[in-house]
Amino acid sequence: MSYFPEIATPDPDAAAAARARQAQLTKPAGALGRLEDLSVWVSSCQGTCPPRQFERARVVVFAGDHGVTAAGVSAYPAEVTAAMMANFAAGGAAVNVLASLADAGVRVVDIAVDTEEPLSPDIGAHKVRRSSGNIAVEDALGPDEVVAAVEAGRRIADEEVDAGADLLIAGDMGIGNTTPATTLVAALTGAEPVAVVGRGTGIDDEGWKRKTAAIRDALYRTKRLSADPIALLRICGGADLAAMTGFCAQAALRRTPVLLDGVVVTAAALAAERLAPGARLWWQAGHRSTEPAHGMALTELGLTPIIDLGMRLGEGSGALVALPVLRAAVATLTSMATFEEAGISGG
Amino acid sequence: MSYFPEIATPDPDAAAAARARQAQLTKPAGALGRLEDLSVWVSSCQGTCPPRQFERARVVVFAGDHGVTAAGVSAYPAEVTAAMMANFAAGGAAVNVLASLADAGVRVVDIAVDTEEPLSPDIGAHKVRRSSGNIAVEDALGPDEVVAAVEAGRRIADEEVDAGADLLIAGDMGIGNTTPATTLVAALTGAEPVAVVGRGTGIDDEGWKRKTAAIRDALYRTKRLSADPIALLRICGGADLAAMTGFCAQAALRRTPVLLDGVVVTAAALAAERLAPGARLWWQAGHRSTEPAHGMALTELGLTPIIDLGMRLGEGSGALVALPVLRAAVATLTSMATFEEAGISGG
Repeated sequence: MSYFPEIATPDPDAAAAARARQAQLTKPAGALGRLEDLSVWVSSCQGTCPPRQFERARVVVFAGDHGVTAAGVSAYPAEVTAAMMANFAAGGAAVNVLASLADAGVRVVDIAVDTEEPLSPDIGAHKVRRSSGNIAVEDALGPDEVVAAVEAGRRIADEEVDAGADLLIAGDMGIGNTTPATTLVAALTGAEPVAVVGRGTGIDDEGWKRKTAAIRDALYRTKRLSADPIALLRICGGADLAAMTGFCAQAALRRTPVLLDGVVVTAAALAAERLAPGARLWWQAGHRSTEPAHGMALTELGLTPIIDLGMRLGEGSGALVALPVLRAAVATLTSMATFEEAGISGG
Repeated sequence: MSYFPEIATPDPDAAAAARARQAQLTKPAGALGRLEDLSVWVSSCQGTCPPRQFERARVVVFAGDHGVTAAGVSAYPAEVTAAMMANFAAGGAAVNVLASLADAGVRVVDIAVDTEEPLSPDIGAHKVRRSSGNIAVEDALGPDEVVAAVEAGRRIADEEVDAGADLLIAGDMGIGNTTPATTLVAALTGAEPVAVVGRGTGIDDEGWKRKTAAIRDALYRTKRLSADPIALLRICGGADLAAMTGFCAQAALRRTPVLLDGVVVTAAALAAERLAPGARLWWQAGHRSTEPAHGMALTELGLTPIIDLGMRLGEGSGALVALPVLRAAVATLTSMATFEEAGISGG
């Protein structure tokens, strides 16, 4: 079982300095709204004021298939996951376009895609298995696999931070992955399945009923385990979700800020917060997706989304649309003139 | 009195082509949420699909003082307007920092700052007068002045479009300007003063009462004139608001999309829509500010803000934080692979 050392708190002195500097900038106090809070958060994560603009923001897309697609929970066939891996590599997916615009690098990792061979040795370096189990009828992972997946996510975060990443985004790709993500949120929060099940990539009413039934069946096997995130990831999660859990927790351990994306990443983050309490202080919610379980997980984490644009794509796309807002927060605190510098009284 | 030719509708064929292309991109239909709608809107404004990324986005900050500051409606002294002009020129204001980050150009125009001389001949080229009148006790402008101000705004829009601007943002700067803006919204919508009056840059309870009293007194003089936007701009608006009105309407006439900012710009836009019906189809609401009158004006215009971050600064700052979202909408529609290009079935 994975062990996490204590997570440090972002620097309160840098936060105080950032608040004080915000009050001196040439604008009414508080007039930049949420941007001011975000700038203070970045300062506290970096331990310095004014903060530095992000120079190496990185998106890691965690790809994995899920046996539960056999239960008819998705509008798309499972083969789309592997096909999308090639699309990522060719630069044609939303994450590629949005990352390029937001000046972030993209890395795709095959954690559990249902193919014999990964797209490349690099992409498959942390692969745990071919697809995760069908949680409607069996555990997603074996006891060793869940630990291997969490550790894979931790190693990936370490690799990124060691290579200079100053902001991390986790993205997801995997047909059927909102089913285990939703189950995980329900198991971690005690919510009823019907309250959390969404349409994923766009299933119809019959598909929604099948998805809800699969989640109910998976949840049944998680009884009395709500305090054990590793057990939940094993029973009703998946290798990709476990890797994202390790990634989000390890980023916090490495004092590196994270922008969360949609329901899949946020479900993993909720498990990470249970595994490494306080990790959430190193995260912001990039956006609010249309999935009900996403809102529930955000509430449980005490995070308020930066944007709310009805997105439900995954891949890190929502976080990438929010990234320029975070950059704007940093830029204003760093580059605006103070009242004194501008020779204006009334500050 | 200003006369506006009929405003054309953004191209429905380009919009249809954009909707069709969205359905072919490598993502579930609708999964980019509002980004898809925005991409369709840009296509329809440009009359082409896929749309072109904005290459010359321009913010024009309309600066003007307001005699109503004598009534104690603002937390800041009127002299701050002129001081901020120098701050804009030095690049130290929020608009400078945010525009630089969002790759937009900034132009500041002195429409009615209360100084003998403008900061430079260029900045003062369209100046109408020193400060607008104290609307609590007198009309903001004379009959010739209001027309001159609207025409100034139209000329400024023409200058920008003629110089290649492909996206326009209007910003505001002027101590006390939320008082006439709020009055204008109330006069155009029939709202009660107490329902629309906000804190502006941060007045206290006593200041809020003085502001509400000033607005009530100004509104009294607008009775039976709610259908005459020029009369309202003259009585309870100001030269800067009238110029922004001309600017927003003229941008629509020139088929150039506009991102609206906060309550001051949106109040002017509401007047522009009355003056040039259909102009609103060329606008998007960049953000929702904390001013109650802003929400009311947006509802009246049928516009939904892109971001909602509790900002209340003006200068075009909210629109500039939204600009990267609009760019993301364009980039995804323009640059993502289609299912066919990626060799994926299931699209």
